[in-house]
Amino acid sequence: MQPVRVGIIGASGYSGIELTRLVLRHLGASLRFVTSDRWGGDTIARRTGLRSELTYVPVEQGVELAGGVDVVFLATPAESSLELVPRLYPLGVKLVDLSGSFRLRDLSQYPAYYRFTHSAPALVEAAVYGLTELFRDEVRGARLISNPGCFATAAALSLAPLLQGGLIDPSSVVISAASGVSGAGRKATEDFSFMEIDGDFRAYRTLNHQHLPEIRQTLSRVAKVSVPLVFTPHLLPLKRGILNTSVARLQPGVTAAQVSAAFERAYGQEALVRLVAGADQVRLADVVNTPYAVIGATVDQTHVVAISAIDNLLKGAAGQAMQNLNLMCGLSETEGLL
Amino acid sequence: MQPVRVGIIGASGYSGIELTRLVLRHLGASLRFVTSDRWGGDTIARRTGLRSELTYVPVEQGVELAGGVDVVFLATPAESSLELVPRLYPLGVKLVDLSGSFRLRDLSQYPAYYRFTHSAPALVEAAVYGLTELFRDEVRGARLISNPGCFATAAALSLAPLLQGGLIDPSSVVISAASGVSGAGRKATEDFSFMEIDGDFRAYRTLNHQHLPEIRQTLSRVAKVSVPLVFTPHLLPLKRGILNTSVARLQPGVTAAQVSAAFERAYGQEALVRLVAGADQVRLADVVNTPYAVIGATVDQTHVVAISAIDNLLKGAAGQAMQNLNLMCGLSETEGLL
Amino acid sequence: MQPVRVGIIGASGYSGIELTRLVLRHLGASLRFVTSDRWGGDTIARRTGLRSELTYVPVEQGVELAGGVDVVFLATPAESSLELVPRLYPLGVKLVDLSGSFRLRDLSQYPAYYRFTHSAPALVEAAVYGLTELFRDEVRGARLISNPGCFATAAALSLAPLLQGGLIDPSSVVISAASGVSGAGRKATEDFSFMEIDGDFRAYRTLNHQHLPEIRQTLSRVAKVSVPLVFTPHLLPLKRGILNTSVARLQPGVTAAQVSAAFERAYGQEALVRLVAGADQVRLADVVNTPYAVIGATVDQTHVVAISAIDNLLKGAAGQAMQNLNLMCGLSETEGLL
Amino acid sequence: MQPVRVGIIGASGYSGIELTRLVLRHLGASLRFVTSDRWGGDTIARRTGLRSELTYVPVEQGVELAGGVDVVFLATPAESSLELVPRLYPLGVKLVDLSGSFRLRDLSQYPAYYRFTHSAPALVEAAVYGLTELFRDEVRGARLISNPGCFATAAALSLAPLLQGGLIDPSSVVISAASGVSGAGRKATEDFSFMEIDGDFRAYRTLNHQHLPEIRQTLSRVAKVSVPLVFTPHLLPLKRGILNTSVARLQPGVTAAQVSAAFERAYGQEALVRLVAGADQVRLADVVNTPYAVIGATVDQTHVVAISAIDNLLKGAAGQAMQNLNLMCGLSETEGLL
Repeated sequence: MQPVRVGIIGASGYSGIELTRLVLRHLGASLRFVTSDRWGGDTIARRTGLRSELTYVPVEQGVELAGGVDVVFLATPAESSLELVPRLYPLGVKLVDLSGSFRLRDLSQYPAYYRFTHSAPALVEAAVYGLTELFRDEVRGARLISNPGCFATAAALSLAPLLQGGLIDPSSVVISAASGVSGAGRKATEDFSFMEIDGDFRAYRTLNHQHLPEIRQTLSRVAKVSVPLVFTPHLLPLKRGILNTSVARLQPGVTAAQVSAAFERAYGQEALVRLVAGADQVRLADVVNTPYAVIGATVDQTHVVAISAIDNLLKGAAGQAMQNLNLMCGLSETEGLL
Repeated sequence: MQPVRVGIIGASGYSGIELTRLVLRHLGASLRFVTSDRWGGDTIARRTGLRSELTYVPVEQGVELAGGVDVVFLATPAESSLELVPRLYPLGVKLVDLSGSFRLRDLSQYPAYYRFTHSAPALVEAAVYGLTELFRDEVRGARLISNPGCFATAAALSLAPLLQGGLIDPSSVVISAASGVSGAGRKATEDFSFMEIDGDFRAYRTLNHQHLPEIRQTLSRVAKVSVPLVFTPHLLPLKRGILNTSVARLQPGVTAAQVSAAFERAYGQEALVRLVAGADQVRLADVVNTPYAVIGATVDQTHVVAISAIDNLLKGAAGQAMQNLNLMCGLSETEGLL
Repeated sequence: MQPVRVGIIGASGYSGIELTRLVLRHLGASLRFVTSDRWGGDTIARRTGLRSELTYVPVEQGVELAGGVDVVFLATPAESSLELVPRLYPLGVKLVDLSGSFRLRDLSQYPAYYRFTHSAPALVEAAVYGLTELFRDEVRGARLISNPGCFATAAALSLAPLLQGGLIDPSSVVISAASGVSGAGRKATEDFSFMEIDGDFRAYRTLNHQHLPEIRQTLSRVAKVSVPLVFTPHLLPLKRGILNTSVARLQPGVTAAQVSAAFERAYGQEALVRLVAGADQVRLADVVNTPYAVIGATVDQTHVVAISAIDNLLKGAAGQAMQNLNLMCGLSETEGLL
Repeated sequence: MQPVRVGIIGASGYSGIELTRLVLRHLGASLRFVTSDRWGGDTIARRTGLRSELTYVPVEQGVELAGGVDVVFLATPAESSLELVPRLYPLGVKLVDLSGSFRLRDLSQYPAYYRFTHSAPALVEAAVYGLTELFRDEVRGARLISNPGCFATAAALSLAPLLQGGLIDPSSVVISAASGVSGAGRKATEDFSFMEIDGDFRAYRTLNHQHLPEIRQTLSRVAKVSVPLVFTPHLLPLKRGILNTSVARLQPGVTAAQVSAAFERAYGQEALVRLVAGADQVRLADVVNTPYAVIGATVDQTHVVAISAIDNLLKGAAGQAMQNLNLMCGLSETEGLL
């Protein structure tokens, strides 16, 4: 079988580096181009230590090369994706966009959460939201994947089985999540200096994080009713990983066994989700540098606490993007990931 | 004025060391004895670098010396306090117990949360719960202070003004908190080894932490109705500090201005509480090694997120204990703390 | 080609887990047994998340199974290796011992540095010291590899080219090195608790670390004169990695260009050594989770500072062990490592 | 007694904040002005949480106010101190300059290490190098103190007693030191971002750090012969503290007892130096947030390893500056520090 030919636009960000690593070790894929303004003219080997003598090219050259590959990953800021996807889509190449540009169906939310008015509504319509475990069938046939946000992936996975099963009150959901610093991308600001982050823990974008409408959209879709949740993201003094703590009121009479069964039904056969016995068994360190989501739930008489953990750069970005590429291209879903 | 004569039982734990430091630098207090099994026979100077040649003595010797001091701090495990307080109380010495032994009024909860049946119910009755900002008048006249738990302090301070003011639905409270490792005390187990903690983040004792009934008791008392909250504590990969994220549904029509006003009314004149403009402005690093609580809240149309931060060993333990000693002894509340 | 059949004795320590991971992903190797007292009866998948349903067995069962495999790794304490190697060697199976038991040719040093009198002198004689880049030819034909210590690997690689080339005064070598905490193995002591390690940095076993005679032996061998170096290891507050700073006086007239040329000659063709332009370009973070050693040197008129970095569990233990297995078995040296 | 009136120029850097804290808690000092471009117009309380309503003013206003105080601290970059000291010195106010501008007696070294040609040679002559324990008598009478560098303090204290006593070969000194990140000052660059620093360890300015000539100058002065040492500074992934590891060849016949006696003689009566039994007993964590230097040495037959630790912002900067102020003003040397 011919290897899938892949290009990466935005290959020097943290997600872009992970994508590069994943494509290079994927036995059924062949990396054809990588773009980077930052590292233009240098080789992958020199910049990352990975074994490839491919040279980073300017993004415009990437766009030209895109016609000759099967899939392009866009690991670009939202504004760049918004500009690039409409140029690449007509080429017929499959696209996986890791930005937020095509995630929200309700176009009226872009100005508030992304600070732009959307200029490609038809492609929002065409895009498939690539939360693989929830929407696998759509992913298979997609030409444009809007790859989920890291917090949005962790949150949705922790709650979808409970909402699908009608086990919780959709109006009661409260989510508190914490992410490592790589979630913010490369930063050369005092705010993200070691001196400011080390030994600190704090919330940010409380009640107005851009993943809030994304989580609401996904959960409302699986619940088939509106899920008006509260979401508070926090910043952890570590490099990688997200731990998401979701709390909801159980519908009357719902038991721990029903909760377990719902997760088992949803994820028991999933290759990249690992279920553990309770909320306390979910540890961020266990998922770092792995493509897995780990999920566990604990209940009392009235509430459930469902905790999930992912590596924000893998299941929360590049790993899920590769999982989606595999599905789109008819390959084994975990190829290159395990 | 004669200095207040102070003894510390359990002076080699993390809270005990902080108490030692605070008493030594308190201009109106004189440290008379310190007990420690661990460091018995050694001096404070040698073990801690603090400037005192006082020698650690066995706890039984501390009990004998207690009759000759004005105040005894007990920085002992709950089981030890349960045994010691009934022996010390009749001596007439003022007591500040940092353990959980006398915090819960409902005696039926001790077996579940502390694994013992309470053997001194009359002293539970006599004990004043020393959350200073909420119960200052009682503290002033107390002979036995039950000093609040670290999580319980952070949680109660973040929510009390909202409940007192009737601004939130008492049935909607969801708390997620995160503590540094010193909260667990000295540990020589693999679980608390550097290799297990560094780079990790996880919940523990989800839905059954011993501070849960303590927070419920305090908030129900200030709300004058039952506050059946959900509480999920997490363990941070850092040494000191607690950040507490409280979420609640606003009563209909409540505004951001009303929320601000409630906090201003409650804490505007407090020496050891600092209010900041919003939830995102509360940073754990800002309170480490300080006696302060920092609190900020952010609201949207339906919910409030109120975040508080304290140093778990200071406002969450030794600092608040000293604040209470000052009040009990008629001294300036912040003496030795600022 | 038949896969190389491999067993691992001591598979639940940090090096043992790395070995397990490396063997499982090695396309030419097949893992046949893993022993662990700690995890006995449990599967690799459950304990490590790696994809293998192999069950940990007691060490005695491992010894029985050893006859049916091609290579056995011993990731055991020195005392255990001392007892096990003489039992396994006669079986004809190839052995790679990661402990220090067979590293020192001078038997008189074991009591001082390892606290035992050596009971198998003939096997010390038979053992090949597996610092691959320096002694590759011997490794190829070996039946028993004594795999180098982590500090010893980093130190020797940084200095061997300078001594081989006669560029430095052998009597002037001073080494300061720093290791992450995993170098000490699993620990359930207060000394290795998060509270003691985080934010700390200190030396340990100054002037009497067990790798000191090992480094002296290697460097004296390559220099063909005695190299009486000074070695001070330090403990870093991070999980993995060693940075080794070697200082030596240049022989009169030696230039920066000669120093560069010596490193280039020694390692320019090495797959697992990366040379960088100067001492400041060597970063510990760049080698963590990689099988590489990175080396750079800076000189002034009189001295050279040569810095090397390795992942202590990979090039400093399991990675080099696998590199040696590949050579012993006629496989590509980097198979399973890159 | 009248309090000493103090001004701080450059009060918003890390050393400046420490100076502010120390002056505010000093019972015999009164803080009269603080300058900061960064925080101009804001109060100390708002920016630092310290209890002072003093407002940060522009540096030029500080220069005007300098005539009305007894001592001015300059916690400014070297270039700024070079410009300011000549303007302030004629005012008769005592000056403590924390920069490197007046540390090197050999003016020819400024271009190489500080990138400027010195414009005030007479003041270099007038300046007293304020390494308190070594040059206390000169400090007492000084009008201009050049406060030592952090690495230079740690290094000189670890070696001075050995050189003064003639116990080591002056030509054999090799120093390896490691500093926390605050040593570099505030940084808004990717190099000093959390992502780059956390989990990393590396050398920087190998063989050409600006403290190298400073250490050489001090040690040559106490040794009364040239001490051409090698110095390799490293960057630790933690906020505060320096650990300095000095290695030297013992003169023939020198014993451990002589080494101990030399340190005891030099520092046995020092209030801010604590001697410990050996090199391994020196721990960076023990000095963080304290004004102390801790020193210990270990010897074998041929070499001594002397390790010192300081908080780079206290004994390595603001603490020693305050120690010097106390001496200059006839106050108790440790006032405000313990």
